[in-house]
Amino acid sequence: MSIIVLGTVALDSVKTPHGRRNNLLGGSAAHFAMSARFFNEVNLVAIVGEDFPRKHIDFLHKNGIILTSLIKSGGKTFRWSGEYKGDLNTALTLSTELGVLSFFKPKITDHQRKIENVFLANVDPEIQSHLLKSMHSPRLVGLDSMNYWIHNKRKALFKLLKLVDIYVANDQEARDLSGEHNLIKAARYLRGKGPRFIVIKKGEHGVLFYCDRFIFSYPAFPVEKVVDPTGAGDTFAGGFMGYLSVQKSISEKILKRAVIYGTILSSFNVEGFGLEKTSVLTKKAVNSRLNKFKKILAF
Amino acid sequence: MSIIVLGTVALDSVKTPHGRRNNLLGGSAAHFAMSARFFNEVNLVAIVGEDFPRKHIDFLHKNGIILTSLIKSGGKTFRWSGEYKGDLNTALTLSTELGVLSFFKPKITDHQRKIENVFLANVDPEIQSHLLKSMHSPRLVGLDSMNYWIHNKRKALFKLLKLVDIYVANDQEARDLSGEHNLIKAARYLRGKGPRFIVIKKGEHGVLFYCDRFIFSYPAFPVEKVVDPTGAGDTFAGGFMGYLSVQKSISEKILKRAVIYGTILSSFNVEGFGLEKTSVLTKKAVNSRLNKFKKILAF
Repeated sequence: MSIIVLGTVALDSVKTPHGRRNNLLGGSAAHFAMSARFFNEVNLVAIVGEDFPRKHIDFLHKNGIILTSLIKSGGKTFRWSGEYKGDLNTALTLSTELGVLSFFKPKITDHQRKIENVFLANVDPEIQSHLLKSMHSPRLVGLDSMNYWIHNKRKALFKLLKLVDIYVANDQEARDLSGEHNLIKAARYLRGKGPRFIVIKKGEHGVLFYCDRFIFSYPAFPVEKVVDPTGAGDTFAGGFMGYLSVQKSISEKILKRAVIYGTILSSFNVEGFGLEKTSVLTKKAVNSRLNKFKKILAF
Repeated sequence: MSIIVLGTVALDSVKTPHGRRNNLLGGSAAHFAMSARFFNEVNLVAIVGEDFPRKHIDFLHKNGIILTSLIKSGGKTFRWSGEYKGDLNTALTLSTELGVLSFFKPKITDHQRKIENVFLANVDPEIQSHLLKSMHSPRLVGLDSMNYWIHNKRKALFKLLKLVDIYVANDQEARDLSGEHNLIKAARYLRGKGPRFIVIKKGEHGVLFYCDRFIFSYPAFPVEKVVDPTGAGDTFAGGFMGYLSVQKSISEKILKRAVIYGTILSSFNVEGFGLEKTSVLTKKAVNSRLNKFKKILAF
């Protein structure tokens, strides 16, 4: 059964110590989809404006992403512009132009309503909630958010947390939302708010996974040349959710492998601007790096 | 063959979200020794003042630490006072009173000069250099330092780096000393300065190991209740160096296990104030947590 992902499709302009790129195809749903496609068919739910380049549509289509519910509307595409300095761990947002995102109401087909694997990538929690309500009987629902919503739509976010299976957050978001500094405590707090699986992304420091029965953490795959971290979190989520979506059941072993796939996919993502690396990646290259990681971790 | 460690023996006063303790036995050499003793006989080289409590001497002695070269001098013992807030990742130093440390000249016995495993724990690089010169033919020399020396005795530190096999630094120190943000690049730079093994400690995020032939990293063992992180780095170094010191040869497998032992020992250390936890630890508890960690990391 395929995946449906709701989120943003954006035009990103970034500056990093390795250079500058303008109007790259970006957004939470685009990065998620380009990563999850390694495991499953991905239905993308998002909105773009009339200025959105045809080549980006063709690119997503060519990569097998189902675009039936990508709305093309009058107005401008959501644009984000940011800069990374120093250790490239945090982006400095230079500008955000919501454009068509400000009146986005996701619309999906009757066929899509029956999809069992749902990922609510970063977008207004009220839009996330709207989509989730239209789903028939999802088997697995994942949620991502960001600091802006944690501070400005806290209530809506907590309401949503009750309805999802997986919450994927970065360390700062987990701390902000829980009020706990220790990440295990933060994860336990968030678990109490609903989701049975809490995944805390720590950027270059890897991932912490929390559920009632076990906790585990992995370092990031060591990457020397981080070119552009934009979309790394969504790429992680795509690999994680993509792998889980094709499993018959969910065990500790399966969850570990899902985290590892997310880790490996995002390690490629950061090695190029935007979707540069993820788009030319082969399943063989992914598995080869996974085996290398396995060797690195063995002791 | 035993280990010799040069460093500080201190009276620490700390405040953390879990409480406050005054005049705890601390210092780089004390934490290192109490950890390395799980693997090997440890000779401690340090200085204390006339105010140093007899009970601390008895404690170290009872734990098998060789105190022949622990100088007791007129003057006051080195005192450090600090506070940890929030995520307990960084200490805020409230005061440092050097006391007898300001005129410390290590003196060791002829027997100790022949010891093959040397660890230069955090203390003035000129004192570290002085001790190293008095060693006959060390097989394995490890070095730790801190930001203060990186900024104030940079030249002496670089000179020393040429003479050691292992450099153990925390992430901030590695960045400051190399001028590189990416830790793999920082490690490569430091490798170029002399030591064949670079170990970068990232606190709650684990450890990155770098040498010419391979790189690996491990997360920290997940600890929910971090009571007091003072001495965690020295405890790591003690486990790492202690394990290496009793190996016939050094391979990737051995180095990984050394990092893991360091990781496990420091995970206990942070669960109590000062040496509270490390001092009551059994080899069995260490190995049991090591096996748990192995299970956590397996995928």
